[in-house]
Parts: sequence; structure tokens; C-alpha cells
Amino acid sequence: MITTLQDILKEYRSDMERMESRIHESLGTDVALIQQVGKYILGAGGKRFRPLVLLLTSRLCGYKEHNAEYILGGVVEFIHTASLLHDDVIDEAKVRRGRSSANSIWGNQASILVGDYLYSKALYHAVRLQNQRVMDVLSETTTTMSEGEVLQLMQIQNEDMNENDYFRLVECKTGVLISTSCRLGAIISKAPISREDAITLYGKKLGLAFQITDDTLDYAADQKQLGKVLGKDLEEGKVTLPLIYLLRKVDAGEKAHITSILHADAVSEDDLGSIMGLMTKYRAVDDALRVAQVLSDEAKAALSVFPDSPHRQALMTLADHVVQREN
Amino acid sequence: MITTLQDILKEYRSDMERMESRIHESLGTDVALIQQVGKYILGAGGKRFRPLVLLLTSRLCGYKEHNAEYILGGVVEFIHTASLLHDDVIDEAKVRRGRSSANSIWGNQASILVGDYLYSKALYHAVRLQNQRVMDVLSETTTTMSEGEVLQLMQIQNEDMNENDYFRLVECKTGVLISTSCRLGAIISKAPISREDAITLYGKKLGLAFQITDDTLDYAADQKQLGKVLGKDLEEGKVTLPLIYLLRKVDAGEKAHITSILHADAVSEDDLGSIMGLMTKYRAVDDALRVAQVLSDEAKAALSVFPDSPHRQALMTLADHVVQREN
Repeated sequence: MITTLQDILKEYRSDMERMESRIHESLGTDVALIQQVGKYILGAGGKRFRPLVLLLTSRLCGYKEHNAEYILGGVVEFIHTASLLHDDVIDEAKVRRGRSSANSIWGNQASILVGDYLYSKALYHAVRLQNQRVMDVLSETTTTMSEGEVLQLMQIQNEDMNENDYFRLVECKTGVLISTSCRLGAIISKAPISREDAITLYGKKLGLAFQITDDTLDYAADQKQLGKVLGKDLEEGKVTLPLIYLLRKVDAGEKAHITSILHADAVSEDDLGSIMGLMTKYRAVDDALRVAQVLSDEAKAALSVFPDSPHRQALMTLADHVVQREN
Repeated sequence: MITTLQDILKEYRSDMERMESRIHESLGTDVALIQQVGKYILGAGGKRFRPLVLLLTSRLCGYKEHNAEYILGGVVEFIHTASLLHDDVIDEAKVRRGRSSANSIWGNQASILVGDYLYSKALYHAVRLQNQRVMDVLSETTTTMSEGEVLQLMQIQNEDMNENDYFRLVECKTGVLISTSCRLGAIISKAPISREDAITLYGKKLGLAFQITDDTLDYAADQKQLGKVLGKDLEEGKVTLPLIYLLRKVDAGEKAHITSILHADAVSEDDLGSIMGLMTKYRAVDDALRVAQVLSDEAKAALSVFPDSPHRQALMTLADHVVQREN
């Protein structure tokens, strides 16, 4: 039985090693700076979450050729990594996964251009599979993702952002690439459309649960993991689900206080402490985590059309994991 | 007979009007900031050079369906525009085509993200033509272009950059999208491979001639066109063909002087004046223009496999125009 993340990583170790080789080989350029930045960012301890779900869904749907899942695993990881490079420039981030961000080492210019390179190279590898549906889905995905990035920029420091705005933004920014990773697993397996839809729904719910949990970690006071800084979203003026729930419940004076912190250039220890106090008082983080849990359950329910198998167990376990993780 | 740019614009006016509509329709998003920035940058007086050569080459190769040339015209213009948005962030440009640059109005963040959107949307429209060869060529093109951008970044303020480095860089950065625009005209027309190759060669030579001429305008003292600032490349530390030729010919003292200006953060009127003086003394701009002229002639020669027609005349005229233009 596969019941923990460790079980998954053990069961699919050799597959994921092959995936890892493929990701590094896919960089393929003789331009020194791209090699340097690319190697750094691809080796920066990413969890390969998207390649993993693509692998698992392709196995679930019976894909046997054992080729396209590795190529597309590299493609979705490149798209994800490119978006991180650009995000870190946008957010002026100094740290990524506990190490210096690429922009703080090589500058914004290199990060922008190597991000562009990774997008292009992802497209390049995908095109060579000669699968029209793969390209239809991928091109829609990257378009939606960049819309999501712009939506996020427009919502910076907007204390009136509501739950619907948040869900649209998260769906575009995070949800769609995860649901696409799942869907590609079904497409390369030539799964019937009902199964492809079920897998896509699973991915959509999984992606939302993943991002909401991530957004709560920004306010999770007992969390001391390396590479995660509390209050980062708040400092960047990003309004996430816990804050939306908090703003719904506070009184007028508290709302004014939160708004002033949201609009400030920097968040002091005291400011962060007071927000954390309010989060506890009004149980806003708990509310958000409850929503993530419902989404995780819905993700698992979407897999009910498939009979039990190690692959289904792994995907079920992953849905549990995303709402339980601490980093 | 079509012998001037005005003749071309007159002959293909209604086609290019349809192209223009298509370019604006292709933006297609409900995200306000993308609409705003997109409309601004697409309406900023671009010459639609790439859509025009795509149109002309598709006509030359007998394309009759009158659909894909407009879609792909929009695609290559979007790719070009996306690269301009990112370039202007990289170069911290304040002005583009005589107007404020997008980054100076909406900030670097919006320019990066709307650039990403335009790349994705270009891909989106191209994919929907369901033509594998179109996608093979386009995905190779954008990869090469982003390599070119990184190469340029690596060569900033490098006074030892040579002619080969320059040609590789220009080929990647400018040449390939122009030759691809031509090639796509041949591909959608299902032209025989010998004709496709001839058209591609034309485009490659045209693109190089275009960029070299552009690079000489940075040192063309009698040029007072709106929106073009003399010495911009020099100030940005970009070593272009006239400067490479100049550095070959100057004595050691002059070389040290040029190098110090190249490495300075700003270029004064006096500095620029002294460089212009050296350009005249050693005829370095003339040398570069002579190379552009040879490339223009080679571009025209590549069209000799086609019988005379208005479309061939237009492409010939365009090759003359790129080395004669003053902006």
C-alpha cells in the first residue's frame, strides 16, 4: 500500500531519476550563461511536483511507451521554472528554496532572459512530440498562466480583493499547470475523454489545495523550515485566502490596521506579530485550511472512476500530502 | 513596376489593413492591464516589417487561401513585440519609437508579464493552424532568439568582441525571426523545398542587412529622425559592427579612449563627438554599410529562382529599402 509521500518516492524512484536526467538534458545550449543559470535554478531543490503527477497520471491511464511522460515532465518543469525566474524578478525576491535567488546572483536581466529561454525550450521539446492535442493544451495553459501573473500584479495591495478574485487568480497562476500536467498524462495514454476529464478535475482541485496550503504557510507561526520566510506575501502586498477571510471578520479598527500594513513597504516584526494574533483570534488560517481540505477530498473523489491500483493510491496519497505538508 | 517602399504600401494596402485588424484582434483577453499595455505597444507605430515579408513571400509562392498569412503575421509581430518589451526592461529604455517605453509608463513588472503573455498568445494562435512544420520552425526560432538575447547580455562592454561574435548575435537576435517570417510564407504555400530554402536565404540576408543598417544609424550624425537617439548602443555598452570595425583600425591610445567610454555609465556629448570623429576619420560606418549593401545584394540574388512578378519586385525593393532607410 502506498500511503505516504515516502512510499511514492520509493515506488517511483527509478522513474523519477530518469525524469531528473531528462530535465537536465533538455536544457541543451552552448550559451554559457544559460547553462550556468539554468543548472543553478533546475538544481535548486525543486520537488518536481508537476513531473511527478504527470508520471503518475500517465501510469494510471496505462501509458506504456515510456517516452513522452519524461519529455513532457521536462516541459512542465521548464514552464514552472521559467515562471519562478520571472516571479522572483517581479517580487524582487532575494531567496528561493533557502538559497539565493537567481536574480540576486546574476541580476534581473539574466533572470528575465533565461526565463524566456526556458519557455521557448519547453515549447521546442513539446512540439517535437508531434501531438496536436498536447500543443493545444499547453499553449492554452501558458496563456492562462501569464494572464494569472498579470491579474496578481493588478491585485497587489488590494484589501478589497474577494474570494472569487483569489480563486480565479490561483486557478490561472498555479491550478492550470498542475491540472495540465495531469491531463497530459491522460492525453499521451490516449485515455477516453471521460477519464481525461476526471484526471483534469483531480489536477485542478489538487492545484488549488496545494496553493491555498502554501498561502497559509506564510502565516503559520510554528513553522521553522529553512527557506520559508513568514509574512512574505504580506510584505509583497499579496492578498491571499487567509487574509481575505481575516478581513471579512475583523472590526473597522482592525481592518484599518491590516490595510496600513498591507500598503507599507516593509512589515516589521511587531506588525507581523499583530497580524498573526488576529489570524489566531479569528481562526482565519483554519478557515483557509478547511477549504484546502475540501478541495483535497474533491480531488480524491474525482479518481473514483478508476479502479484501485498503486498509481491511484499514489495520487490519493499526494492529495492528502499537499494539505498536510509543512513546507 | 514596384520600385519604392511607397509602391509596396500602396499595392498591398488592403492586405496590410486586414493584417492590422488581425494583429489587434489576436490580443484577445479580458485582463485590463494586458489590454492597456498590449494596445499601447501594438499601436506604437511599428512598421509591421515581419508581417509584410510574410505576406509578400506567401504571395510569391502562390498561397491562395488568404487566411494563414494573417494569423502568422500576427504571430511573428507578437513575438517581435514581446522581445521589444523585454529588451526595454533589460536596457532600462525610456523611449521606444519616439514615445515613452511601456516600462517607463507601467513599470518593469507589467512589461515582463505582458511580454510573457504576447509570447504565449503567439504560440496559441500558431498551434491552432495545426501545421507541424510551422510549429517546428517557430519553436526553433524563439529558442534561438532567446539565446541571442543572452549572448548580447554576455557581450555587453566587451571591446574584444569580433565580427564573428557580432554576426552570430545578430543572426540569433534579429536575423532568425525575419528569415522565419519569410520561410513561413513558403511553408503555408506548400512551396517546394528549393524555393523555401531560397526564400529563407533571402530572409536571412535581409535580416542581417536590416540590423547592420540599424546599428550604423546609432552613429549617423546627420540623422535627426524623431525617436532615434544617437549613441544609444554605445551608452548601453553594446558593441556593434561600426564599432568593431573602428576598434580594428584605431591606434592604442584611441582604443583606450573608446574602451573607457564603452565602460562608462553615461556617454557625454563630448565623448559621443569624439567617437563620431573617429568613425569619420577611419570610415568605420562606411565599412559597415558596405557589408549591409553586399547582404542586400545577396538577398536579391536569392530570389533569382523566381520569375519576375509584382511580389518579387516588392521583395527586391524591400531589400533595397532596408539599406537606404534613415530610421
